[in-house]
Amino acid sequence: MEILRRQVRCLLPQEEPGGHLAKNAPNRHRRRIVVIILQSDTTKLQYNSIIAKVEELGFTPHPIVGVEKTVIAVIGDKTPDKIEILASMVGVDRIVPIMEPFKLAGKEVMAEPTIIELPGPTYIGGERVAVGAGPCAVESREQYLETARLCKAAGAVFLRGSIFKPRTSPHDFQGLREDGVDLLQEAHETVGLPIVTEVMDPEHVELLDPVVDIFQIGARNMQNFSLLTKVGRTSKPVLLKRGMSATVEDLLMAAEYIIVAGNDQVVLCERGIRTFETATRNTLDISAVPVLKRLSHLPVIVDPSHAGGHRYLVPALAKAAVAAGADGLLIEVHRRPEEALVDGPQALSPDDFAQLMRELKGFAQAAERSL
Amino acid sequence: MEILRRQVRCLLPQEEPGGHLAKNAPNRHRRRIVVIILQSDTTKLQYNSIIAKVEELGFTPHPIVGVEKTVIAVIGDKTPDKIEILASMVGVDRIVPIMEPFKLAGKEVMAEPTIIELPGPTYIGGERVAVGAGPCAVESREQYLETARLCKAAGAVFLRGSIFKPRTSPHDFQGLREDGVDLLQEAHETVGLPIVTEVMDPEHVELLDPVVDIFQIGARNMQNFSLLTKVGRTSKPVLLKRGMSATVEDLLMAAEYIIVAGNDQVVLCERGIRTFETATRNTLDISAVPVLKRLSHLPVIVDPSHAGGHRYLVPALAKAAVAAGADGLLIEVHRRPEEALVDGPQALSPDDFAQLMRELKGFAQAAERSL
Amino acid sequence: MEILRRQVRCLLPQEEPGGHLAKNAPNRHRRRIVVIILQSDTTKLQYNSIIAKVEELGFTPHPIVGVEKTVIAVIGDKTPDKIEILASMVGVDRIVPIMEPFKLAGKEVMAEPTIIELPGPTYIGGERVAVGAGPCAVESREQYLETARLCKAAGAVFLRGSIFKPRTSPHDFQGLREDGVDLLQEAHETVGLPIVTEVMDPEHVELLDPVVDIFQIGARNMQNFSLLTKVGRTSKPVLLKRGMSATVEDLLMAAEYIIVAGNDQVVLCERGIRTFETATRNTLDISAVPVLKRLSHLPVIVDPSHAGGHRYLVPALAKAAVAAGADGLLIEVHRRPEEALVDGPQALSPDDFAQLMRELKGFAQAAERSL
Amino acid sequence: MEILRRQVRCLLPQEEPGGHLAKNAPNRHRRRIVVIILQSDTTKLQYNSIIAKVEELGFTPHPIVGVEKTVIAVIGDKTPDKIEILASMVGVDRIVPIMEPFKLAGKEVMAEPTIIELPGPTYIGGERVAVGAGPCAVESREQYLETARLCKAAGAVFLRGSIFKPRTSPHDFQGLREDGVDLLQEAHETVGLPIVTEVMDPEHVELLDPVVDIFQIGARNMQNFSLLTKVGRTSKPVLLKRGMSATVEDLLMAAEYIIVAGNDQVVLCERGIRTFETATRNTLDISAVPVLKRLSHLPVIVDPSHAGGHRYLVPALAKAAVAAGADGLLIEVHRRPEEALVDGPQALSPDDFAQLMRELKGFAQAAERSL
Repeated sequence: MEILRRQVRCLLPQEEPGGHLAKNAPNRHRRRIVVIILQSDTTKLQYNSIIAKVEELGFTPHPIVGVEKTVIAVIGDKTPDKIEILASMVGVDRIVPIMEPFKLAGKEVMAEPTIIELPGPTYIGGERVAVGAGPCAVESREQYLETARLCKAAGAVFLRGSIFKPRTSPHDFQGLREDGVDLLQEAHETVGLPIVTEVMDPEHVELLDPVVDIFQIGARNMQNFSLLTKVGRTSKPVLLKRGMSATVEDLLMAAEYIIVAGNDQVVLCERGIRTFETATRNTLDISAVPVLKRLSHLPVIVDPSHAGGHRYLVPALAKAAVAAGADGLLIEVHRRPEEALVDGPQALSPDDFAQLMRELKGFAQAAERSL
Repeated sequence: MEILRRQVRCLLPQEEPGGHLAKNAPNRHRRRIVVIILQSDTTKLQYNSIIAKVEELGFTPHPIVGVEKTVIAVIGDKTPDKIEILASMVGVDRIVPIMEPFKLAGKEVMAEPTIIELPGPTYIGGERVAVGAGPCAVESREQYLETARLCKAAGAVFLRGSIFKPRTSPHDFQGLREDGVDLLQEAHETVGLPIVTEVMDPEHVELLDPVVDIFQIGARNMQNFSLLTKVGRTSKPVLLKRGMSATVEDLLMAAEYIIVAGNDQVVLCERGIRTFETATRNTLDISAVPVLKRLSHLPVIVDPSHAGGHRYLVPALAKAAVAAGADGLLIEVHRRPEEALVDGPQALSPDDFAQLMRELKGFAQAAERSL
Repeated sequence: MEILRRQVRCLLPQEEPGGHLAKNAPNRHRRRIVVIILQSDTTKLQYNSIIAKVEELGFTPHPIVGVEKTVIAVIGDKTPDKIEILASMVGVDRIVPIMEPFKLAGKEVMAEPTIIELPGPTYIGGERVAVGAGPCAVESREQYLETARLCKAAGAVFLRGSIFKPRTSPHDFQGLREDGVDLLQEAHETVGLPIVTEVMDPEHVELLDPVVDIFQIGARNMQNFSLLTKVGRTSKPVLLKRGMSATVEDLLMAAEYIIVAGNDQVVLCERGIRTFETATRNTLDISAVPVLKRLSHLPVIVDPSHAGGHRYLVPALAKAAVAAGADGLLIEVHRRPEEALVDGPQALSPDDFAQLMRELKGFAQAAERSL
Repeated sequence: MEILRRQVRCLLPQEEPGGHLAKNAPNRHRRRIVVIILQSDTTKLQYNSIIAKVEELGFTPHPIVGVEKTVIAVIGDKTPDKIEILASMVGVDRIVPIMEPFKLAGKEVMAEPTIIELPGPTYIGGERVAVGAGPCAVESREQYLETARLCKAAGAVFLRGSIFKPRTSPHDFQGLREDGVDLLQEAHETVGLPIVTEVMDPEHVELLDPVVDIFQIGARNMQNFSLLTKVGRTSKPVLLKRGMSATVEDLLMAAEYIIVAGNDQVVLCERGIRTFETATRNTLDISAVPVLKRLSHLPVIVDPSHAGGHRYLVPALAKAAVAAGADGLLIEVHRRPEEALVDGPQALSPDDFAQLMRELKGFAQAAERSL
């Protein structure tokens, strides 16, 4: 299969984004439609001044007078900031935007799917289901190298391994941090798989750029826009995890930040959202896979380990992800889960992982994909 | 494959439940453990009176004194009402229950999976993935019989079709109601598939008992306990849909109501929960499938149509459900979706459904099941 | 202050609703606007057939052609069922409804606030904050009468007291049921306050109609449409609790069911929604108070006891409710909370309740209301 | 009223946290209790190895054998990482932690409320309700200085004003950024109120430290642990907004990061959580106020503007916050809301704000506070 390189960059602003990122955003691609809904008791005077404002702002108003309600459809190519102004006017009830606000991450800009090339060589996207595996955190040389070797042997094509770990409590293990950089390098060299590692801070990006193959943005940092812009200025692929309360649209807008900064190599990762259900750590939003595939050209992978939070759930969720059309999986494996410093309850043992890989083959085949 | 008939009934109270349902519940099976967490500033006096109360209520206290906190583990076989009393005492911070509160729906009562026999003969549960299909609402003789025939031809083993429809607005179509009873009968006879139909009212149960094969309790009525008890007194299987804000535990407790009333033929149905995500009608909680299979002996099916709310999502969600281990599917099919009176946007055409059934085969096979 | 009696009934269909409730709904009041959003790749042919369908259904299409997207605004007076059909057509991306679907519960039908007259005489709605209090469940003659007297003494103007209790588990106390009817009667006569009691089944409505003053529909039955229609055919006020996953719009639509059936005496009750937060039993949606007051003419009360689920939260939430503009409160009081059979942890003692009533006065005054 | 200075710092590790933050965390303060719940079918052998592991890790096991379930209460002073290991062992069903994991933000460390001193001089916490007001974003010299003066005149004691704005879309206005620093300085000098401004990046902290009085951490960055640590190393108060999907416990743990880094001047801010309700921008979790006041010594303020998202909701929510016991409010005011570049629909005009301040007085008084 041929690896396609898409030319999203031609759509990006030519000048360096600089500090005023949004000011240079490609407004010519942002023509859109909104519907202004008027209040029932809006007076003729108020109506006239709304119409005047719409025109003053450079939009074209299309009033539609119903028996009970009047609405004004508005078309224009100005920034949404301009439209928000209208929502504040007396007589306006609310504004319903019609266009999806993402552009560069959307299908309308790029119809064919993005395929991310990785050293190996391998890739994410396309007809193969790319499985990444490894421990949540790099804990020691032995733990990491042994787990990495076993993951590769079982069929993983890229390797997890973070040295900076965001933990809810400052009292919990935060990762090996700077001490772990050499280990990532060594694992890459001896095992020969591309490595994905989490960055939590712009400084981490600089530190890790020479070493890693994929930057991971964790769920808690999905809207850390400084960090998104920072990885967006590198040339490394970015694995972007969905925030726990992020809508699909929010996720695509976060990807948009990375692409606008100049990097179109983004992998979207569904990893569960926060709901009222407590039987699982998070609620895997399996529908996000077909929804994202429909809206965006970016590859979509699923992390069944963080979503479920319990080892026994990982196989069922991994199979469901492949069946739903995911382009890959991100699975926690630890050589001895009962000794893991982070997220042990959800990590598979290497044997369990190898078994899962065998079981996944039939599902990949049914989905007309290879593993 | 042999159909097992389980003997849950031997665990039920021998007497007729009557009006005072819970009074006769099998308390001897409800021994459980709770942990009482004391406040940091609980005095010795308060502590003593809590211990005294625990003993007075017939429980055995096990105090555990930590450096910062004291907790009292409590074991007993009284009803949870008794334990709630303790939560009100001065000095008690909160109570953490340890035992799952469901019994008859749980694995501990019945290790082997329940298999529901249906006329045909066919069954739900066991090694086959049982697919039910049909329109959301019965609209007319032609619409129903034609859709039913096409669903059967494509491989459905039971038939959807409701004549009472719960609709959010009283201004929307509410179903054919009493006028539709004969149509259900006719469809059953001419097409030869068992029929599942929704009941919303105890009166509907009496009306439909002679006609239908499976009673459906809709999501909005999952905690309509009068209705649960009513269908629990029939001998027909019950398809119980999860409420939009019901936890997995709530769903099992609702099943418990039906079983306590005397009917152990319950099929659990995941159909999406309500979350902040608006890209889908509901969020399909795919994890609920393995969670329910682990906790309960009851069969678990998935309704991808209501969960997604958009036709394009149905195939991906159906495949994911089979991959996650669901015992069946419930799919909306309409001979002409664009003319459907209810939920047209999520109904498949008969051709789409037949295509989906063909595609599902590979996933069922990978899950070591037949379709 | 004068009690206004509003004339909503003149808007209701003249004929008896009968079984086919919605068929007789006042369609002439339902003219509304929707926006059909087309897919980006919709062909001219598809576009033409969508326009033709809009016209065939009796709507007027208003196409608005943007640079990237085309939308069609549609005006008409048909039922929403008709509009749903359009969503199924090839080329249609989605439909955005613009009009609120509730009519009789909405401000556009009735601008002045509804005031519910109760025996006493007293009322809910208007300038007074009406406080209802009492135990969650009637447990015994002594418990109920003593609690009732103490609630009245502290300033409650109506009395809680249910004999049918919906409980998540069938093994929990379900209320005194039929045995409690006489007690409700006795409490009404000896204490002299109107009584609100929960009904869970159409049969309960008939049983309790001669005895009680306000029917309560619990959160779990908010979309039990048979029950809503049943209480809608009585002449007693209905206290309608918001379901745990019901939007404000769903709540108003449930009220609409009651009003359409002929009963416009509906009190809306916010009692907390289900979210991911576990520190409270539910999350009190305090914003629902001003939102409902803006959309509807119906009185809005708040139940701080079920929302918080912990006694210590009740005063803060009750004060917040009054400050936010609630027309009343529904507070659990038990003469001895530590002995309550149901929801003891959230019940106030009579002393606590009397203290809260004293503290509430200042907040009611700041809200320009009396207590 | 005397301003208390608490001595939380004495509890902090003496050495510089450095890169390995958590390694130096005060473990001696973290003794806690967990309950290990065994699976029903755990064998004696498995049970023995779990007990052995508990002891090997330095904890004391307290087995409690029930009829149906066995649990082991565990007491110890090790980090939670150690306890997580147990959850991975064969035979363990799950682990229930009993102790709240936050320490330095909790009441058990510091019983009296924290009061944050600000230049002015003024303060947040204590008997006054501190109202901060101003525009969401600093847009221009005129806009900011005029709005600031009007806010002060109406009674605001601190001033909002951000030059870095996190926006969901990279195409939206991102703030004046570096260009706005001088304006903040000028506003502080000419208006004479302390200024709170958002930081999104460790670099912003360095840039703004000389200029601002309070650092704001926005909801999207609540778990940006690098940023929390960065502001934790300054001596400026930090206004920490709750994340959209953060539990109360998560919020306290984020505060813990700041305190562990050396800064105990943290103001918690409830600003709405994400739920299924769409009538409001977010759902204001009013209960969080009394819950946080009970668990923590830190002051709690409420942002009714972002919570509601509509101007008409701000007064009701602000009053509710004061009634529920909030220590302050954060209100968006714009001299001309209809021209605001960000969040105009939720900003009050200066006149509306002055009116609200007058109306709030009565509620503050009822809450026994001044404004």
